[in-house]
Amino acid sequence: MSPGAPFTGLSAFPLTPLADDAVDEPAFVRIVERLATAGVDSITALGSTGSYAYLSREERARVARLAVDHSGGVPVIVGVGALRTSRVLENVRDAEAAGARGLLLAPVSYQPLAPEEVLELFRAVTEHTDLPVIVYDNPGTTGFAFTTGLYARIAELPGIASIKIPGVPEDAAAARTRVREIRDVVPRRVTIGISGDARAATGLNAGCDAWYSVLGGILPQPALRIARAAQAGDAGEAEAASARLAPIWRLFAECGGSLRVVAAIAEDLGLAARDCLPRPLLGLSAPQRSRVAAALRELALGD
Amino acid sequence: MSPGAPFTGLSAFPLTPLADDAVDEPAFVRIVERLATAGVDSITALGSTGSYAYLSREERARVARLAVDHSGGVPVIVGVGALRTSRVLENVRDAEAAGARGLLLAPVSYQPLAPEEVLELFRAVTEHTDLPVIVYDNPGTTGFAFTTGLYARIAELPGIASIKIPGVPEDAAAARTRVREIRDVVPRRVTIGISGDARAATGLNAGCDAWYSVLGGILPQPALRIARAAQAGDAGEAEAASARLAPIWRLFAECGGSLRVVAAIAEDLGLAARDCLPRPLLGLSAPQRSRVAAALRELALGD
Repeated sequence: MSPGAPFTGLSAFPLTPLADDAVDEPAFVRIVERLATAGVDSITALGSTGSYAYLSREERARVARLAVDHSGGVPVIVGVGALRTSRVLENVRDAEAAGARGLLLAPVSYQPLAPEEVLELFRAVTEHTDLPVIVYDNPGTTGFAFTTGLYARIAELPGIASIKIPGVPEDAAAARTRVREIRDVVPRRVTIGISGDARAATGLNAGCDAWYSVLGGILPQPALRIARAAQAGDAGEAEAASARLAPIWRLFAECGGSLRVVAAIAEDLGLAARDCLPRPLLGLSAPQRSRVAAALRELALGD
Repeated sequence: MSPGAPFTGLSAFPLTPLADDAVDEPAFVRIVERLATAGVDSITALGSTGSYAYLSREERARVARLAVDHSGGVPVIVGVGALRTSRVLENVRDAEAAGARGLLLAPVSYQPLAPEEVLELFRAVTEHTDLPVIVYDNPGTTGFAFTTGLYARIAELPGIASIKIPGVPEDAAAARTRVREIRDVVPRRVTIGISGDARAATGLNAGCDAWYSVLGGILPQPALRIARAAQAGDAGEAEAASARLAPIWRLFAECGGSLRVVAAIAEDLGLAARDCLPRPLLGLSAPQRSRVAAALRELALGD
């Protein structure tokens, strides 16, 4: 495996579909097996796309185990975030027991967190486990905004393996500058992974080591085309492959984020039952679903 | 009881102090009994100040029951918010079983919520219970911003009893205009309660029916002085009583919100053990604690 693995390349973030307010285990297994077959570099179960924040400890432990058991040897990373540190540590133990190869940790908040509190959370987790940890920066869901300086302080903790950044500037040179700015303050062992799928090609071309990918969790082939082109140094082909997905990126932007769209894609492809998100989240409206179906047909992504 | 009770007057929001990552039940009981003795109009257990979002279902059910059992007949309202609707409904059942007289519900989010999703959450809860429900608008913790129009749509649901608004403008006339604007679009049965303690006098003077009070949960006497003056129509005395608490309001503003300050007050007064907040929340720094202690002495609030 390459240095930094499994924190390089395409990490696919599967949905955790529900049916009647319970995890739809057969549907989840089908989605995971599809990712393993497609040849993604890792599978991150229980990311934001995997609705980790909405699930009980027991549901999360079960999902982690199913992911490992059905990943066909592809490394599985497990999201362990929770509002209370002691609950995070319980999730860590469950992820270890499931056979996770890494952990994804976001500073989930209710009371807005101070930087010291986030640092101490990462310290508590890294002191508690030998599994490598991804720092998950997602201000839109956690309400917490990392600074580059805080990345540096957290990345010094032994056990930090990667930082999942929320995006890069659209301009290629500005994106390179941003990635270099982070690279300059973190140890060499720490990889940088882009999220925000619409900018993934830009991020990978700018030097990100990994793509933590929502789309890759449901449509791994087109995500792999972007990732493999960027990894081969073909920046133009990576951008072109991303540009072909513009209808998807538009849906992400216009339908309240990627999760509801990806759920609609899963439902359209028969990979999840209708209404597979945890309430209070509602699925897309009928007109939005029609746009999803049209985009899948237009892009010939239904297969 | 007056119309709208228990959703008028001073509702005190007690801390749920922890010790060694478990609810410190004797400390919680002591705090509740103190509020009952002081003569607050209601006690709202498991508000944001009560750390509801950090506690398990079992902990919350137990805290609700302790609050009712030790409230000396003062009506107890219980916070039932959670990320997943089915969990909210479990908390509702537990609050009913505990003897709650009302429910406080915030649209807690991880994935940002759409207005329709919040409306359907309140519909699900009000259809599920006969207990009156307070709409809890706290964008700083939930990440969700209500509009006045959404207040109106939710307030139409039978069972909605009150709206807890996050604040009013500082200017008295502007505050009156804001309260009237809300009043104009909600049914008469729905009371309006101010939160954001530093503006409570302004809000009450502007026509708010209730004060959902953090300070009232730990220092009920000075909170009652503000509330009773406003209720008696003595706007000047209410503002003066609030102005005397300026050192407290400054601490709230400068120490990351009210919760950490109130926890430090409880610890200073011997009402909670040191480090009583759920991790990852850290208590105040030593210099901040000194300021808290100095403010309590200066205001002669330690008794």
